Amino acid sequence: MGEKKDEERIFRLALAQINSTVGDLEGNAARILEYAGLARDLGADLVAFPELSLTGYPPEDLLLKPRFVRDNLRVLGELAGKIKGVDACVGFVDRKEDIYNACALISNGEIIDVYHKIHLPNYGVFDEKRYFQSGRAPVVYEIGKVRVGINICEDIWYPEGPARAQSVVGGAEVIVNMNASPYDLDKPEFRRKMLSSRASDNVVFVACNNMVGGQDELVFDGRGMVFDPGGTLILEGDPFAEELLIADLDVELVFRRRLHDTRRRELERTSQGRGEKIPLVRVPEPVKKKTRPAIPEREVGTCGKEEEIFRALCIGTRDYVRKSGFGNVLIGLSGGIDSSLVAVVAVHALGKEQVTGVLMPSPYTSAESIEDAKILAENLGIESLVIPIADIFREYLEGLKPVFADRPPGLAEENIQARIRGNILMALSNKFGWMVLTTGNKSEMSVGYATLYGDMAGGFAVIKDISKTLVWKLAEYVNQREGREVIPARVIQKPPSAELRPDQKDEDSLPPYRDLDPILRAYIEEDQDLEEIVKAGFPEGVVRRVMELVDRSEYKRRQAPPGVKITPRALGKDRRMPVINRYK
Amino acid sequence: MGEKKDEERIFRLALAQINSTVGDLEGNAARILEYAGLARDLGADLVAFPELSLTGYPPEDLLLKPRFVRDNLRVLGELAGKIKGVDACVGFVDRKEDIYNACALISNGEIIDVYHKIHLPNYGVFDEKRYFQSGRAPVVYEIGKVRVGINICEDIWYPEGPARAQSVVGGAEVIVNMNASPYDLDKPEFRRKMLSSRASDNVVFVACNNMVGGQDELVFDGRGMVFDPGGTLILEGDPFAEELLIADLDVELVFRRRLHDTRRRELERTSQGRGEKIPLVRVPEPVKKKTRPAIPEREVGTCGKEEEIFRALCIGTRDYVRKSGFGNVLIGLSGGIDSSLVAVVAVHALGKEQVTGVLMPSPYTSAESIEDAKILAENLGIESLVIPIADIFREYLEGLKPVFADRPPGLAEENIQARIRGNILMALSNKFGWMVLTTGNKSEMSVGYATLYGDMAGGFAVIKDISKTLVWKLAEYVNQREGREVIPARVIQKPPSAELRPDQKDEDSLPPYRDLDPILRAYIEEDQDLEEIVKAGFPEGVVRRVMELVDRSEYKRRQAPPGVKITPRALGKDRRMPVINRYK
Repeated sequence: MGEKKDEERIFRLALAQINSTVGDLEGNAARILEYAGLARDLGADLVAFPELSLTGYPPEDLLLKPRFVRDNLRVLGELAGKIKGVDACVGFVDRKEDIYNACALISNGEIIDVYHKIHLPNYGVFDEKRYFQSGRAPVVYEIGKVRVGINICEDIWYPEGPARAQSVVGGAEVIVNMNASPYDLDKPEFRRKMLSSRASDNVVFVACNNMVGGQDELVFDGRGMVFDPGGTLILEGDPFAEELLIADLDVELVFRRRLHDTRRRELERTSQGRGEKIPLVRVPEPVKKKTRPAIPEREVGTCGKEEEIFRALCIGTRDYVRKSGFGNVLIGLSGGIDSSLVAVVAVHALGKEQVTGVLMPSPYTSAESIEDAKILAENLGIESLVIPIADIFREYLEGLKPVFADRPPGLAEENIQARIRGNILMALSNKFGWMVLTTGNKSEMSVGYATLYGDMAGGFAVIKDISKTLVWKLAEYVNQREGREVIPARVIQKPPSAELRPDQKDEDSLPPYRDLDPILRAYIEEDQDLEEIVKAGFPEGVVRRVMELVDRSEYKRRQAPPGVKITPRALGKDRRMPVINRYK
Repeated sequence: MGEKKDEERIFRLALAQINSTVGDLEGNAARILEYAGLARDLGADLVAFPELSLTGYPPEDLLLKPRFVRDNLRVLGELAGKIKGVDACVGFVDRKEDIYNACALISNGEIIDVYHKIHLPNYGVFDEKRYFQSGRAPVVYEIGKVRVGINICEDIWYPEGPARAQSVVGGAEVIVNMNASPYDLDKPEFRRKMLSSRASDNVVFVACNNMVGGQDELVFDGRGMVFDPGGTLILEGDPFAEELLIADLDVELVFRRRLHDTRRRELERTSQGRGEKIPLVRVPEPVKKKTRPAIPEREVGTCGKEEEIFRALCIGTRDYVRKSGFGNVLIGLSGGIDSSLVAVVAVHALGKEQVTGVLMPSPYTSAESIEDAKILAENLGIESLVIPIADIFREYLEGLKPVFADRPPGLAEENIQARIRGNILMALSNKFGWMVLTTGNKSEMSVGYATLYGDMAGGFAVIKDISKTLVWKLAEYVNQREGREVIPARVIQKPPSAELRPDQKDEDSLPPYRDLDPILRAYIEEDQDLEEIVKAGFPEGVVRRVMELVDRSEYKRRQAPPGVKITPRALGKDRRMPVINRYK
């Protein structure tokens, strides 16, 4: 407590949670330089940036373009020359005889060393074995009088990975793990537990920094974390916020604790016996101020699950729209809960001036729905247009009459209406340069209860990974947060309907959502089979039908726009099902 | 020549080029059993089936379902019990502590041994490291008095792979390489050269069998090949045809030739020095007839490049339509060359009774185009419908007038027309259960010269990977092959036009195809950069513009239907570009 600490053994670490854009090398470099400046002004010993912070993540097949790799090296070189007064580790693509997911340790304007990611993820949304050679051996950096091990993302998910060798064999006191770790709703808690174990298993400070922002289907939640050598979380950033986290790490604590830890000694002897060595790279002292400012106290952030998801949707939507160069968005408002929630997200993400709602009533649209859509638009303060589709619909039926002859109306006629709406939204998009946001939820997308080129037409599917059950919860959350009924209570309470024929209700075609959603979760997210799901208490006929609907609507999902991944298994590159598939 | 051969040293090998369907375990097993019977009747010693012949290839995320793996093992067990009188190697998914891309060696109704694929491809269209653990060590089978090494697909692409150890260390005289190797137009020649080298490098017979048929974007060309120990191609199957290839291999030739080969001895000594051993697994003699029928002589198949591509399109289309359970298809006929070629492919693939053409003239459709479309339909003997879109178009303009106000007509109005056509085709599809085939070519899809939800709307994009230049060649080929102008000469000769506004020509918006296509090829298929392409003789402004068009239309391609991969780099899972991408 009152004990005088050795200032040289207090490591001031800055974690820059920045929002890089894939491919924007110059823009990302500028952002890195800006945050390096902030860290320098705060007297940080080291500032860590996210994995591939220079290129954005994931760059996908840009990595197969030699010029892209070359440009990234050139920009890194220019950037390094400008980073002074603080050491920095920056994620980039290294090129030797092959390419590597790498981190440059920059000191006094020079690249002192380069680390190559050792464990390359190739599951879920990851395809890193498609691109990179894996790194061979970790090193430990001596920065001032502190030993620091740097590694990248997946590396730390392996208990026997580089963090272990860096700590136990190389004597690292601080592990800095650089991430571009995509968000899903189970991930934060999972990361916290795993990182805490790594810290306590290796008796080392573990600091994890992470990318922020949206990239196609993915959203990165930032939210850097620091754990002490006992595994206690001592700092956590806000989710989905760009920021510079800073912490003073008293690394003497590591030595004190290690004296009490016998597991480590055993492993160290075995490793030395095998001749394992972790090279120590001495980093020259940067020219910096003698005294450093005090850093402000900060609480470990807390954030409810609905709030967290809502923020994920907002940043995912904002970044998709903005990073693809759009200003305004367009949403078809049906008076239903899905389009209402999407409109709320859009307004939060982009501002009400940037959002236009379009009501496209058909003969089957209830007066109530029109009213609800108008109230929502008013509550949000967004512009709304009304473009009825009855006359257009009539002309289609007229044109098709010679072919359709006397066949009874059915799905074809329903879909024509949805596609007229798709056409109108896209015409507005083309005319005014606005991006269409689609409004389908995960329950609908899973069973194919949506019209391809109709309500599925658009640039971004905001709630594509949000089940109907969760849509309801988020709507409640939104109203509670605002302290008023932004989304009219009637919208939340009324039975869902597509309103494409008289008195249509979702439950005419689908099981009730309270059954449908858990079945979908079991089948899609957990790959459970019929027997297992039935055993959980659902009628076999219903389960079988749901599975069939999921299987046979794969072709629709293949043509759907991307949307924010929220669950551990989203309906995008996370779940790669064949379209042609006879497995039952 | 006149020399008497040791009958027991003549290995009669059958290669079953079958068309498996992903997920259809029972159906695939039945097909395997049928071909095993054919091979037995021909007195084969061994019949080889393609890689993952039991599950179809690629099963993608079906592999993450434990029940799928279990069912595949059950069906394999049942199948094995029925295969008698001939040894067989069948591709399946093995499950030990992990799952493997595997081959079962079946003899006398028993599974004698299982081989695990060692080299897992994870590039291009392949994602095998997402699913499988890789095999550890090859074995050699003694079948009768012949030593046979079996391995799987990618295994043989490594010169130091299992075929080498099986031959040099294990003494294999025949290498059987089981494939699900997707077609592209450069692949057959590449395979021939590579396999020939493997045979001569290892002084061994190399037999390669391959899957046939279409699966989503991929098409497998079958076309099994056998090379003698000198590297000479002695047998090659027809491309894209299901068949049983059979060859008598005089394995004494291997020994005779090996006496002359010194490279092999050196390697063998080094390997033995390192203690490498290839286990020899003796396969029990199957109960079979004493004498075997003579096998008919057969020529090494030849097939021109246009014919080969045309067949690939036909089988890819047929399998996509049939395997997804559709009978009939629907094509919007514009009187242009793209839709004409697609109609020809559809008729070849499915039969004229199964194809309906739809003419949807607008006010901008020329009389010539209507006439050409009608002549084509007549030439092909397909039903054609005429559904004019002028009235529907007028109603859209009417409905949008209050919003569009006095803005001049442009892209929005053009796209409305294309989307009306998409809506009509989909309405017919929904009403009659026909699949819509889209007609965009690779040149258009690359630069985004197509309307999302308009002409891009449909289930399968037949010529998505065929450049406009190649479309012309294929049209000429079709007419030449038929000996008549199936596609009217005028259609081939007239300048391409979308006919969405008065006097529109493709070249108003795009560089001439003679420049566009080679630029696209350099940029998309070869990842060349601006400087390299300009150096090849194209104006910098044009190259820059084409690259920009390709980059910024990625969002459209992401929502496009699948189509047959024909080139070494198709616009599907072969080229995984981020949508949000600021790299210039």
